[in-house]
Amino acid sequence: MTDVKNLIDQPASLGSQPNFADRLITEIQLKRTPLIVGIDPRLDQLPPTLQEAYSDRLSRLEQSQEAAAWAFEEFSRGIIDAVAGLVPAIKPQMAFFEALGPAGMLALARVVDAAQSRGLMVLMDGKRNDIGTTAAAYAAAYLGKKPHSPWGCDALTVNPWMGYDTLEPFTQRAVAVGAGLFVLVKTSNPGSRDLQESKIGGESLFEMIADHVEGLSAVTRGEFGFGVVGAVVGATYPDQLTDLRQRMPHTLFLVPGFGAQGGTAADVVGAFDDRGFGAVINSSRGIIFAHEQQKYLDFARQDWRQGIEQATRDAIDMLATETSAGKLRQ
Amino acid sequence: MTDVKNLIDQPASLGSQPNFADRLITEIQLKRTPLIVGIDPRLDQLPPTLQEAYSDRLSRLEQSQEAAAWAFEEFSRGIIDAVAGLVPAIKPQMAFFEALGPAGMLALARVVDAAQSRGLMVLMDGKRNDIGTTAAAYAAAYLGKKPHSPWGCDALTVNPWMGYDTLEPFTQRAVAVGAGLFVLVKTSNPGSRDLQESKIGGESLFEMIADHVEGLSAVTRGEFGFGVVGAVVGATYPDQLTDLRQRMPHTLFLVPGFGAQGGTAADVVGAFDDRGFGAVINSSRGIIFAHEQQKYLDFARQDWRQGIEQATRDAIDMLATETSAGKLRQ
Repeated sequence: MTDVKNLIDQPASLGSQPNFADRLITEIQLKRTPLIVGIDPRLDQLPPTLQEAYSDRLSRLEQSQEAAAWAFEEFSRGIIDAVAGLVPAIKPQMAFFEALGPAGMLALARVVDAAQSRGLMVLMDGKRNDIGTTAAAYAAAYLGKKPHSPWGCDALTVNPWMGYDTLEPFTQRAVAVGAGLFVLVKTSNPGSRDLQESKIGGESLFEMIADHVEGLSAVTRGEFGFGVVGAVVGATYPDQLTDLRQRMPHTLFLVPGFGAQGGTAADVVGAFDDRGFGAVINSSRGIIFAHEQQKYLDFARQDWRQGIEQATRDAIDMLATETSAGKLRQ
Repeated sequence: MTDVKNLIDQPASLGSQPNFADRLITEIQLKRTPLIVGIDPRLDQLPPTLQEAYSDRLSRLEQSQEAAAWAFEEFSRGIIDAVAGLVPAIKPQMAFFEALGPAGMLALARVVDAAQSRGLMVLMDGKRNDIGTTAAAYAAAYLGKKPHSPWGCDALTVNPWMGYDTLEPFTQRAVAVGAGLFVLVKTSNPGSRDLQESKIGGESLFEMIADHVEGLSAVTRGEFGFGVVGAVVGATYPDQLTDLRQRMPHTLFLVPGFGAQGGTAADVVGAFDDRGFGAVINSSRGIIFAHEQQKYLDFARQDWRQGIEQATRDAIDMLATETSAGKLRQ
């Protein structure tokens, strides 16, 4: 942490990059919602018209990965078109693009460009980490603006298992380029109990990491009081979300598990402070596969993007009605 | 773990894919060494001739990432040429290729092909993980043969922080396609103490994970007694290596930290059983940047690949002289 503190103690070295947390909260205020949309494309769940176009392309290309990458890109562009005016950011899930090999990575890079050109921030969900200069390579890969960062994302999810020293290169990079990271503090799956809830003395391990992340955020905080080192905290354990909000007053949360994973708007109430700040709430499947849901069938019959747009509006309304995020609308 | 056990209890469902551990040990026997070579390219450490070629290409292309990706691919191909007859496997570090954007990923895919066409196994160092079907997407991306897996690697390093349920999709895929995984049990960096050595009751967290990994390896073991779920255990803590060898009799170790990170052949003695089996020992910078070392200058002056070849031979000799891996030569 020393190096980060040094960086903070010398504001001149920060250059003129705006603080990531300030940028994100400004977008949240502009769009008046903390909802973000996860881009998790799956071939067998694409809208029927895209599935047909994919099959057609596959039969001509005989390159299944390239045909699928084309379909993922088209799907992602459609999502971006539908949500660009509504939400502050998207969260692409790298695994689904990586599963298409290099063709998928090319498509992903174009999706990032498309989102940013529509004014959406890109919080890349790659859950990367490694040690020393290797961590620095991941940080340089994803954080910052093109061409200095080839992927040019606004933030990256980062896995803390290898130790606090591995978070330093990401934090330094984030401060230097005006980007952010979200450290996996408490994930939304049942197995998050195995390691993350292990008790060290009277504390859970995830609370120990929470304190470390809060320390990093406190020293990197911007005008709104939040720092550039955020935390991933699942929506599936509402009490933990409330406790962690108290424990981490300077830390932005990225909350997955809302919607398809079972979390409701009531479950994420605790993620926010009384201004409606403090978290972005991600919904992926519940929005992007709206065409599969009975209540969006009429929209999706016209155009699958209209189903996505309506599902996004509904999720925004739910959050505004049931949480302090409603303050953003006043 | 239930699903994996079910798979094991019904050997018919395994198909005819040879067990990953058996494949790796067969290659270790064939090459008579457990040394593997890490491919961690860095632009400023490339051999001078490649640096010149890169600069030349950069000036013509004006596409810095594509020029760098070309240089990384050339460098990797040179490493592969130099070590293909000497070692069982290579371990590419994804971070350095990802740091070049999609162009780097394309280069990496070609490096995997080049290695496998020269008979080298590819243990991909990506330290990936996520939950549920997302973990399954990563597993399908990297584990298995092309075209069923677009990256077509023999094994992948996997981060366990999100919980045991996240290891299941990787284990199932590994069993089904004859591939392997290496779970980060105890890493080689100083910060590995922060979380991995946290004490739960009388045990360290990494020991708890070690027991889980050993359970997965025991039920997936092949003819040599080792399973397909290996463990990453750093060379920088020799006593832990010895203790874990005892504790994990069916688990293959991938040991980083040998060479440039400070681990010596004496430090990895404990990684092996008395047959010289049980581990692959990775050396990256100490081998691939041989041209920077005084003692390999004469070789590297002729051709940087000769420096790499000699550094590989020396590392193999050190391991054979000081550890039970010497048995592989009898």
